Order: sequence, then C-alpha cells, then structure tokens
Amino acid sequence: MTGGGLFVTVEGVDGCGKSTQTARMARWLEGWSGRGVLRTFEPGGWAGGGLLRSLILGGDVPDDRTELLLFLADRSGHLASVVVPALSAGEIVLCERYSDSTLAYQVWGRGLPEAFAGPLIEVCGFVRPDLTVLLDVDVGTAERRLRGRGAADRIESAGAGFMARVAEGYRELARRSPERFVVVDASGSEDEVAALVEAAVRGRLEGAFD
Amino acid sequence: MTGGGLFVTVEGVDGCGKSTQTARMARWLEGWSGRGVLRTFEPGGWAGGGLLRSLILGGDVPDDRTELLLFLADRSGHLASVVVPALSAGEIVLCERYSDSTLAYQVWGRGLPEAFAGPLIEVCGFVRPDLTVLLDVDVGTAERRLRGRGAADRIESAGAGFMARVAEGYRELARRSPERFVVVDASGSEDEVAALVEAAVRGRLEGAFD
Repeated sequence: MTGGGLFVTVEGVDGCGKSTQTARMARWLEGWSGRGVLRTFEPGGWAGGGLLRSLILGGDVPDDRTELLLFLADRSGHLASVVVPALSAGEIVLCERYSDSTLAYQVWGRGLPEAFAGPLIEVCGFVRPDLTVLLDVDVGTAERRLRGRGAADRIESAGAGFMARVAEGYRELARRSPERFVVVDASGSEDEVAALVEAAVRGRLEGAFD
Repeated sequence: MTGGGLFVTVEGVDGCGKSTQTARMARWLEGWSGRGVLRTFEPGGWAGGGLLRSLILGGDVPDDRTELLLFLADRSGHLASVVVPALSAGEIVLCERYSDSTLAYQVWGRGLPEAFAGPLIEVCGFVRPDLTVLLDVDVGTAERRLRGRGAADRIESAGAGFMARVAEGYRELARRSPERFVVVDASGSEDEVAALVEAAVRGRLEGAFD
C-alpha cells in the first residue's frame, strides 16, 4: 500500500491488451475492494502531458537520451498531479505503462545502456508500484492486434525485432522483481485473459482490503 | 575546447543583459577567432524546444521535480540537435543559460534539495562548458530593466526574494569553479558591460585560436 492507496501498473508491448484489460480490472476491483479506482496512463495522463505525449510520439526528438528525459518529465508531472493525490486519498490507481515500460523500450528496445538509464530513473525517486501486471504476449499476436486497429505511431512502427526485444525486456524485469510482478499469458481471447488477470490479482491482493 | 569547437555559456538573473551581451560577444568573437559563432539559448533553442518552453514558462507544471526534468529534457534535445553538431564542426557556441541556470533557479531559487538536483543533472552526462560568463548584477537593477521591457513570465514574476536567492546561487557556483567562470559586473551601461566582458573573455581565451 502506497500512501494509504494501492498503486497497480499494467505493462506489456503495444497490442498486448493493456487498455482493455485495465478497464475490466477497474470494474471488478472497485466492487471487490470497496475503494475508489482511478484509471490513468503514461505518457500523457495529466494536464501538461498532452504536449509531452505529442512531442514524444510525434517526432522531433533527436536522440534516445532526450526521449528518456521526456518520459521521466512526463512521469513526474503525472505522479504529482494525478497519481499521488489519488493514493493519498486511499484510492486504487491503475496505470497503463510506468517505469518498466521506460526500461523495456529504451534499454532493451532502443539499446540505451542500462548503466545510464537505470541510475537516471533511480535518482528521480519515483513512487514504486505495489503490484505490476505484465500482459505477456508473443509479438506475432500483438502485431495482428495492432494491424486490426490500424495503429502505427513512431514507436509502434519500429518493427518486429524491436518489439521482440521489448517483450524480452519486460520478462527480464519480471524475473528480477517476482514479489512485485504478476505475469499473465495474454495471447488468448479478451475474456480468457481477463479471467487469468482477475485470478492472479485477487491471489496477490487477498486480505489487502480487509 | 570541446569536440574541436568552444562551448561558452552566458548566465545571470533575468534582466542582467544576457541577450544583449551575447549578441555583442558574437560579433567580436567571430572576427577575433576566425571561427563560425553560433548563438543559441535555453530553454527552447531547438525544434522540439518551443513546446517545452511553453510548458515550462506557461504553466501546468505541478512541482519542482517536474520542472527540473523538463529543463533537462530540453537541454538534452538542444545539445543533440544544435550544440554538439556545431562543436563537432569546430564552431564557437554561445549559449544563453545552461546547467548553472538550472541549479541557481531550482536549488537556490525554488529550494529543491541540491542533494537531489545535483546527482540528477550529473547522471545526465551533459557536455561541460569551456567557459561561463556570469553577468552579475544587483537585483534592483535587474528588476528595473525587466519592468522597462514589460516582461513577466512565470519565473520572472516569482519576486525579488526569489531573484536575490538565484543571484547568490550563481555567485556560489562561480566560487566553486573559478577555472570555468568569468564573473563580470553587469550593473553599468550596455557599452560599459560589453567592454568588461570583452576584456575578461579575451584574457581567458588568449592563444586558444592560434
């Protein structure tokens, strides 16, 4: 529990089903916990975030260090204006993408040295999630879903080799922090994945709201 | 000399005369050195910087950590797309505001702990200036100049106590790195200050372009 609330992040490659599954989690979590549930996302989920999201996804970013710092600035603004106030009010915050996305995409995906990105993220002192749900899916399935919705921004269009490296990054991060991560096979149908997520998250949070 | 070029930063509180004096330096430096001189500034002196500058100065920034990270993202983009290419081409880069501004405004001005801001800036690994010109002026003079040009953005409107702390921050930073700083009394007329800057900078750079 973080500041009286509960901070849950949802992670995975583009096309893994984060938005859909986060919306479904929000519904049953609210009833089950008796708490308010706030759904939010990075990058961009705050007042100044629209500008940053358009800069990050749109295009004038000249190198990987700058991209990383933009993500961190966005995170800091999002935490201060959205996440931390909700946690302080005792709510459950469900956030699509957080620090694991930054590491998986920048380090495993783009090849920024972990010896550079790790300490930089660490020194920012961001709130640590209580629980992280990784929606693990093979890259072929994720790409079919993305094509199905006609989506291609700068990151999504980086290609299959890139996404495979990002997926491996998430798995490695989960191996390093098993106490924080719940890894769910997200290759099935929406209902199948939702059932797996609910069972796994209920198991981890058993007793947390008594 | 940095990457074949020379990186000179110009620092001081709002109203100290940075833009005017930087323009005058550019003129005589070009003739004296035989090098190309690039004038630039932070925040905002690159393709993505307009967006960041408007976010930083305009207003939805919820806390000091976020503001610091926005300045660092802006610096990283500015370095990669403007400063480093010019230095690599052997040019002299004159930059209004750089890391000393970040420390003076965020730490001395806003009260962000130096134990937080210092390591965060350090771990970014930004290019170090070869020379930093501090235009040192009393806060009353700076404020009269600001009122004269009708300027008041979010930072400039933070008040006299704030600006006095920032000015003291610059002086402390100069005391810590005397080999890098040239401190010039900037309380005189434009011509008087320009003559002091030119004498001091020529003294430091004697022989650098032989």
